[in-house]
Amino acid sequence: MRAVAIRRGSDEPELIEKPRPEPADGEALVRTLRVGVDGTDHEVLSGSHGGFPEGEDHMVLGHEAVGRVEDPNGTGLEAGQLVVPTVRRKPDGETNEYFRRGEPDMAPDGAYHERGIVGDHGYMSECFTSPADFLVPIPEALARHGVFVEPLSNTEKALEHARASRSAFEWNPESAAVLGNGPLGLLTLWQLTQEFDRTYCLGRRDRPDPTLEFIDEVGATYVDSRETPVDEIPDEYEALDFVYEATGYAPHAFQTIRALAPNGVGALLGIPDSWEFEVDGGQLHNDLVLHNKCILGSVNAGVRHFEGAAETVSAMPEDLLDHLITTVTDPEDVAPAFEDGDDQIKAVVEFESP
Amino acid sequence: MRAVAIRRGSDEPELIEKPRPEPADGEALVRTLRVGVDGTDHEVLSGSHGGFPEGEDHMVLGHEAVGRVEDPNGTGLEAGQLVVPTVRRKPDGETNEYFRRGEPDMAPDGAYHERGIVGDHGYMSECFTSPADFLVPIPEALARHGVFVEPLSNTEKALEHARASRSAFEWNPESAAVLGNGPLGLLTLWQLTQEFDRTYCLGRRDRPDPTLEFIDEVGATYVDSRETPVDEIPDEYEALDFVYEATGYAPHAFQTIRALAPNGVGALLGIPDSWEFEVDGGQLHNDLVLHNKCILGSVNAGVRHFEGAAETVSAMPEDLLDHLITTVTDPEDVAPAFEDGDDQIKAVVEFESP
Repeated sequence: MRAVAIRRGSDEPELIEKPRPEPADGEALVRTLRVGVDGTDHEVLSGSHGGFPEGEDHMVLGHEAVGRVEDPNGTGLEAGQLVVPTVRRKPDGETNEYFRRGEPDMAPDGAYHERGIVGDHGYMSECFTSPADFLVPIPEALARHGVFVEPLSNTEKALEHARASRSAFEWNPESAAVLGNGPLGLLTLWQLTQEFDRTYCLGRRDRPDPTLEFIDEVGATYVDSRETPVDEIPDEYEALDFVYEATGYAPHAFQTIRALAPNGVGALLGIPDSWEFEVDGGQLHNDLVLHNKCILGSVNAGVRHFEGAAETVSAMPEDLLDHLITTVTDPEDVAPAFEDGDDQIKAVVEFESP
Repeated sequence: MRAVAIRRGSDEPELIEKPRPEPADGEALVRTLRVGVDGTDHEVLSGSHGGFPEGEDHMVLGHEAVGRVEDPNGTGLEAGQLVVPTVRRKPDGETNEYFRRGEPDMAPDGAYHERGIVGDHGYMSECFTSPADFLVPIPEALARHGVFVEPLSNTEKALEHARASRSAFEWNPESAAVLGNGPLGLLTLWQLTQEFDRTYCLGRRDRPDPTLEFIDEVGATYVDSRETPVDEIPDEYEALDFVYEATGYAPHAFQTIRALAPNGVGALLGIPDSWEFEVDGGQLHNDLVLHNKCILGSVNAGVRHFEGAAETVSAMPEDLLDHLITTVTDPEDVAPAFEDGDDQIKAVVEFESP
């Protein structure tokens, strides 16, 4: 079968031929429809994040997939069922407490593989196998947009953790900002518009721009970070009850503390590299304490977050979802899916018409 | 009546004469037994924190009090009942949503006064009045040690918020550290020994020292920060599921992120001044995200936290509580209560023998 992979020593995706996988006991075989490309894939290609499966000279890319069950293999799934696979898997088949309690997203380093990212092949191939427990059934209507379930599962988890962090008191948030106007930022922005009275989205683009159009369409306010840095949002707009950081720009973690309203929470999801810089650490520490603020990091997601994300995608207007998909490529010609221009929002590789 | 106050322009406590207060409707009159002195009192004296009641040339000090109801004034309290007053009050008698829902500790700047700290007289006087809702009844056995209820109420709240922040998954913490071996740090350390398998307490003292003896007595491990900075605790000892920062040393907020185990939470309670320094912001941001870590600030406490703290103090062995009180002074001679030597743990001003 055809697969799109990265070879050791290369930083480019490549079309390869691989044997079709055979489902083991408890696994189903899934026919891939579409696989999305995101920032993590770019980090995997550049070598700054992730790692190859042991003993393999390549790794199949892709962790944002939607597919159709080809062979349920006695797992209880139905042939033809639309599914989205989760990302984390038991390392080398060995289970641990995190997988046993259905919280692989809380497993520490070494206690998981991530398909298409670290230690395990991804989904960018005609077929893949997976334990049925990690295949989340989604409605048939999501065949085209099921690639958004995995990214939004991360938001589902981050929001769950953020709300939990504010659950010891009566929290009545009204304002929220998303830092970053990539596909995950925009998807999350729509979700936040459903819950918050006033929403903002940070970027550094000039109009006309398809992401700024999306921000307008959902009724959010665009904040140009070249004019208004994150820590100046309270002066220019208002202090924020919730901030969602999705750029991985390291100073955002610290500027977010200043941007928060009293009792607010910032959720960090971007993954920056090492970078030393100066902060007013006394001010930040003081501000966190005197205003009961909270900053938390969140990575990956579990099955319940995928289920919540599928509901969110189902609730999103189709035209907004279509607006986000700017490139659909064939596995024979994936280069355009890995280009990162200002016109690109979400690119998907399509193995079979949904 | 006699009161210990700070006058505008001075940085020393002073014994003054004041009229005995009259309880208004809904208020009770309380006879003061003991009032503790803590770091916040020192900040009030130095002028780095807090502020005088409007229109007054002085502020009565003290926010850690235990007293006995002298005149219930029809509030439902019983004459003779032992009580601890909470600290925050409605500003200028005007209520707001935070007070209405019993969460004054979550009120933002300007939406509260703090007795003995900002905008309102404290408890370091023969008598004080308070709305009965802010007088927390405590058991008669706590007459001598009731001064520990207010400090521990802050811990009660911080722990509540920390646990809430980890409530979206199964958190099974085993290790905890208190940064700071002041009286609040030591009280909290004892509380943590009841919940965590392994506890650590950070300080920078040489033996023999009464605080290090306390750390030994409760079965915790002393970490000398001159040898092992906070961010090196994982290498030297172990990564920590919970960190409680009670020194107000600004770099601790950032070192705590490194000291935490995956899925851990750090609660900040100290209140540093502005201080610019360099951090590896990329590393910290990355570490928060990839290991689902959380940092939260916590200030003040509500009635339920005072009630929880009273239970904790009741459960603490008397000899440990006695170990913590190193100075008992008379209001006529308060200077020793405001000295801050290495032999000092908790000083109290005693108005009436408990």
